[in-house]
Amino acid sequence: MPQQDRAYATREAILHAAAEKFDRLGYERTSLTAVLARAGLTKGAFYFHFPSKEAVADALVERQSELWTRLRESWRLRGLDPLSTLHGMFTESADRIAADVVLRAGVRLNADREVGYPGVPSSHVLWEKLVATYVAEAGERGHLRAGADPEAVARTLCSAALGSRLISSATTACTDFPARIREVLAHVLPCVAAPEWKLSGSQTGSEGP
Amino acid sequence: MPQQDRAYATREAILHAAAEKFDRLGYERTSLTAVLARAGLTKGAFYFHFPSKEAVADALVERQSELWTRLRESWRLRGLDPLSTLHGMFTESADRIAADVVLRAGVRLNADREVGYPGVPSSHVLWEKLVATYVAEAGERGHLRAGADPEAVARTLCSAALGSRLISSATTACTDFPARIREVLAHVLPCVAAPEWKLSGSQTGSEGP
Repeated sequence: MPQQDRAYATREAILHAAAEKFDRLGYERTSLTAVLARAGLTKGAFYFHFPSKEAVADALVERQSELWTRLRESWRLRGLDPLSTLHGMFTESADRIAADVVLRAGVRLNADREVGYPGVPSSHVLWEKLVATYVAEAGERGHLRAGADPEAVARTLCSAALGSRLISSATTACTDFPARIREVLAHVLPCVAAPEWKLSGSQTGSEGP
Repeated sequence: MPQQDRAYATREAILHAAAEKFDRLGYERTSLTAVLARAGLTKGAFYFHFPSKEAVADALVERQSELWTRLRESWRLRGLDPLSTLHGMFTESADRIAADVVLRAGVRLNADREVGYPGVPSSHVLWEKLVATYVAEAGERGHLRAGADPEAVARTLCSAALGSRLISSATTACTDFPARIREVLAHVLPCVAAPEWKLSGSQTGSEGP
């Protein structure tokens, strides 16, 4: 394999090995030694690609951050109504997190970084604001029940999604996260949607449309 | 103050100072030195009461665990219907967690201990089972909508409660946790309860009945 491809493969192997450790143990309890052992690499090979354990974590956080931007754009292009778009984004996120340890580790690292640093603008707040814009748009289209508060709905959905991920991670390594997120949506959306709203697209299974 | 009372006061001061640190920083990032500085105590005074930082964490975890048993019993004695009892227990828990850093730290430590130790029976699973028994009892009394699955409802409620606590902790030091848990209950219970079910007791404000 050309040197460039080999370098890429090594970098990915480091990210994958680190992700497996970070996903199970978190940042603090993961040692660089354990990552190297997992990846079957020497320190020299590692330092060719990353200056530190923190830099690997940065790369994982960055990767998950890019994915959410792409995911939002892909759901926007489907042109579904806002509540169906939200349903699709939540379920696809859960499916991807369950399937991909690199993504899962990035999500965990990103969330863990915020704990213990009061004052750092919380990504939870940003997610809640983003979700609230979809719910508010649903309201403008007449898809919400009278009295439904978009920000309160967003807080409930984001809380339940976070809690589902953490419980699923602690109990089944996220295997049941896709099923859990669908339960959450099935328990909340009918409560806040107007009776005539119907889910568009086919996001009831584990596959995207 | 008699020596016994002074010893009790010192022990409580240690628990309170440690709770403040654990609540903000978690177990790993909290140093014994920081706890001593916060409590204004020497190492000698500390070691008279606790053999280690871990022992203080154990005491905090133990204390929150005892509270839940008492809280369940006090709500059982009110004799409300199962869904109203669940509503009361969730809201009172949130009110207490928001008001008491010692309790809040114990809850956090207990939850954090489970992360990274796969195979340890998860308290999440125990909570979900407990909540499911209340929802199932509501079903036996005809208080659930047709098709509502008690275990799925329990998973949604426990996920949303956990997520609410964590987001509230990260963004407002749990100040808005009571309001958040009430939003969650308002978005989920009407979805799963039979239309004729009505909330008993007066748990809509921040005060208990």
